[in-house]
Amino acid sequence: MGDSENPRGCLHRLFSARSVAVIGASRNPEKVGHIVLASIINGGFVGDVYPINPKVDEILGLRTYPSLGNVPGDVDLVVVAIPAPYVPDVLQEAVDQGVGGAVVLSGGFREAGRADLEEQLAEIARSSGLRIVGPNCQGVNYLPNKLFASFWFPPVMPGPVAVVSQSGTVAATLAGWAADENFGVSATVCLGNQVDVSETDTISFFADDPETRAMACYLEGAKDGRGFIDVIKRVASKKPLVILKSGRTAGGQRAAASHTRSLAGSDAVFDAVCRQFGVVRAPDLESLYDSAKALSTLSPPRGNRVLIVSSSGGAGILAVDEAERHGLTVPRLPSTLVEELQGLDLPRNAVYANPLDLTFCSAADFAAALSVVDCYDVADVYLLIFGDPIQGAAEVVKKVGASIRSSVAVAFLGGGEVEKADRPRIQAAGIPVFPTPERAARGIAAAVQWFSRSVKP
Amino acid sequence: MGDSENPRGCLHRLFSARSVAVIGASRNPEKVGHIVLASIINGGFVGDVYPINPKVDEILGLRTYPSLGNVPGDVDLVVVAIPAPYVPDVLQEAVDQGVGGAVVLSGGFREAGRADLEEQLAEIARSSGLRIVGPNCQGVNYLPNKLFASFWFPPVMPGPVAVVSQSGTVAATLAGWAADENFGVSATVCLGNQVDVSETDTISFFADDPETRAMACYLEGAKDGRGFIDVIKRVASKKPLVILKSGRTAGGQRAAASHTRSLAGSDAVFDAVCRQFGVVRAPDLESLYDSAKALSTLSPPRGNRVLIVSSSGGAGILAVDEAERHGLTVPRLPSTLVEELQGLDLPRNAVYANPLDLTFCSAADFAAALSVVDCYDVADVYLLIFGDPIQGAAEVVKKVGASIRSSVAVAFLGGGEVEKADRPRIQAAGIPVFPTPERAARGIAAAVQWFSRSVKP
Repeated sequence: MGDSENPRGCLHRLFSARSVAVIGASRNPEKVGHIVLASIINGGFVGDVYPINPKVDEILGLRTYPSLGNVPGDVDLVVVAIPAPYVPDVLQEAVDQGVGGAVVLSGGFREAGRADLEEQLAEIARSSGLRIVGPNCQGVNYLPNKLFASFWFPPVMPGPVAVVSQSGTVAATLAGWAADENFGVSATVCLGNQVDVSETDTISFFADDPETRAMACYLEGAKDGRGFIDVIKRVASKKPLVILKSGRTAGGQRAAASHTRSLAGSDAVFDAVCRQFGVVRAPDLESLYDSAKALSTLSPPRGNRVLIVSSSGGAGILAVDEAERHGLTVPRLPSTLVEELQGLDLPRNAVYANPLDLTFCSAADFAAALSVVDCYDVADVYLLIFGDPIQGAAEVVKKVGASIRSSVAVAFLGGGEVEKADRPRIQAAGIPVFPTPERAARGIAAAVQWFSRSVKP
Repeated sequence: MGDSENPRGCLHRLFSARSVAVIGASRNPEKVGHIVLASIINGGFVGDVYPINPKVDEILGLRTYPSLGNVPGDVDLVVVAIPAPYVPDVLQEAVDQGVGGAVVLSGGFREAGRADLEEQLAEIARSSGLRIVGPNCQGVNYLPNKLFASFWFPPVMPGPVAVVSQSGTVAATLAGWAADENFGVSATVCLGNQVDVSETDTISFFADDPETRAMACYLEGAKDGRGFIDVIKRVASKKPLVILKSGRTAGGQRAAASHTRSLAGSDAVFDAVCRQFGVVRAPDLESLYDSAKALSTLSPPRGNRVLIVSSSGGAGILAVDEAERHGLTVPRLPSTLVEELQGLDLPRNAVYANPLDLTFCSAADFAAALSVVDCYDVADVYLLIFGDPIQGAAEVVKKVGASIRSSVAVAFLGGGEVEKADRPRIQAAGIPVFPTPERAARGIAAAVQWFSRSVKP
């Protein structure tokens, strides 16, 4: 669907390439042309990989070819890591060989005063249909295809969020955090100078990608405002799209203009557009990450009512404050439910309200309380807050998450080894886990807002 | 000074106790009376420790005593872990024996419907001068005295921030984060039911404690509004005091009333009081932590001008946005400085502005740029942002921090192993390090605001 709407060729062949040539492949482990080849091989890409280098016969155990024309099979994607002045000729050759996509890692274009070279790339893309990512970018990782056509160092693990970014470091940071937490990404795309493939094309692609449940996007400005609006109008109410857009202040706009030459435009206008079409706008990097996590892993809440169950009274109150400030409702518990809870063998000092404060409790106390709570229709989301490390929290959350009706999110407060081990376990079970009550409440609010909107006509 | 102002006895003897008796010491490793004794011993307390238990002769290698009266020496502090109904008698005995302070860990008082027992404790404190922390609390850690009179599990390491909290879990979380980052705390005080020692007394004590450079305080309400204002009036402009106060919303106020029976009062009034007396008010738990970190480890900025030096253009812009939104100035660079920087051997695509975007650079590039920058009076704080893991960042930051005139803060973005290893190294060198550009900018803003205020008459 995204494809047919794009007259200049689709991104499918680029991301789902069955064969990749690395132009400028190198034996020198410090060169980008070596790092990206190693990344493709080590990432487990199952298609054909052709290192292109006229001077050596073999790199990293693979036979090299002097040029694209010598490669024995079709090439879907070329990854380019040669000096900028040689890039236009190589891309023209790629067009002649019927290549579908190019990821140009090389710098030395517009950002270095060589707008002329960049214009040649643009012209090749326009006239041929070859889709070009970059130049001057850190590349593309597309995990459903085990394609790691990038040079970077943070760990990457498969997950539900596609990261689209005008900054390589921002993309790497999100992917690094996600790997640490057993959360993961479906893709990372560093857009670089965007001579051809833009944030709009990429968002459009991931909107239709079955492996992607939400998109996290860092932008400094839209390459083409009209096209951007057209795409978010089509996709943002169908699949969650979270955008962190910088350049909100005068200084930020000046800096964005230097970095990606983006015209940041009016922040108020951008905000209004997001609001109109259901884009979740993140105020900062952590919020971009948290919202994408909530939107891709929280089971869709039916409404905005939150029940907070906590081993910490203080943390529970912090969650209430933040939930109410973000439009969530923290309903009181019906007296029949309170009576039934009081009949359980919960800690003596438990406070039977919302937050349900279990005080100094065990993981089993959470399970017992939730099995009773879930017989009442009191909330659409349960926020479980674990304070002082509670043995067995992950097991209880997994069981609860699989058996109860409402959506479940977790805040696991910092502490000892239990928290460090259990947080990724909970996330791996597909239940979003956050490091503070407030971040959990904000994540839930983002999901509630998006899902309540998306069910409307 | 804090002492002389408190007619009911001082907290010095409690925190700096030379001898501690644990009443209710137990051989059962699951009992609080065992955990707290083990904590005191393992924490390396150098004074005398007397386990009180009439039924056994020895616990954890220490001789036990049947009662306080049998202890051979003076006792400064009693730690109480026996059922609530026995606590008043034991505290009366402590008064008779000339004990100076008590930390009552036992629950089962007001929070369990036994306000009568709690009133007996209050009366003992009022009539005798014995200072009582709790009851129903997780205890006290005072690191200058290696006193770990608490039962909790997160790691604790020595550092510059005293944590004062009406929630044990919140205190534990702050201490746990601080230990993870090589930052640390000077003390943690869990106030519990505050029958005697309140947030006000504790803030007053730490304001005069030479080992404490800043105070991080979680409150649900002030025990005594007038006394609270008197104390913050005296201390908040002398030593940084950061307060996270919950109960900001209607639901939060209801929950706070259940938890600590605090009358949260008007949030707007509290805000105005903070503003008037120079208290830094944190909007959430992470901000409480970040502000306390910045205020205790950033060398005091002379003004509000920030120069951002970054390996990531995108992260630099996010920092600019957040800095400007929080009242910091991000000045342009003078052309003479730009020319001098251009003469260095920095990466070809570096952007010579503020943010100074070093692009794909080495740690040495940061050092080279900063040595030139520091000859110009362009900024009061340098915010260094490391993106993709940069080998040797910690070494450069340490060297720079020791040699240059302006204050230095760091944002180290998530990524690979280098970041995980270097973040605590940087913090250990006394330079505040944050996980995102925005958190760094907000931390710097809190410090600039406080220091600019505190120099005024």
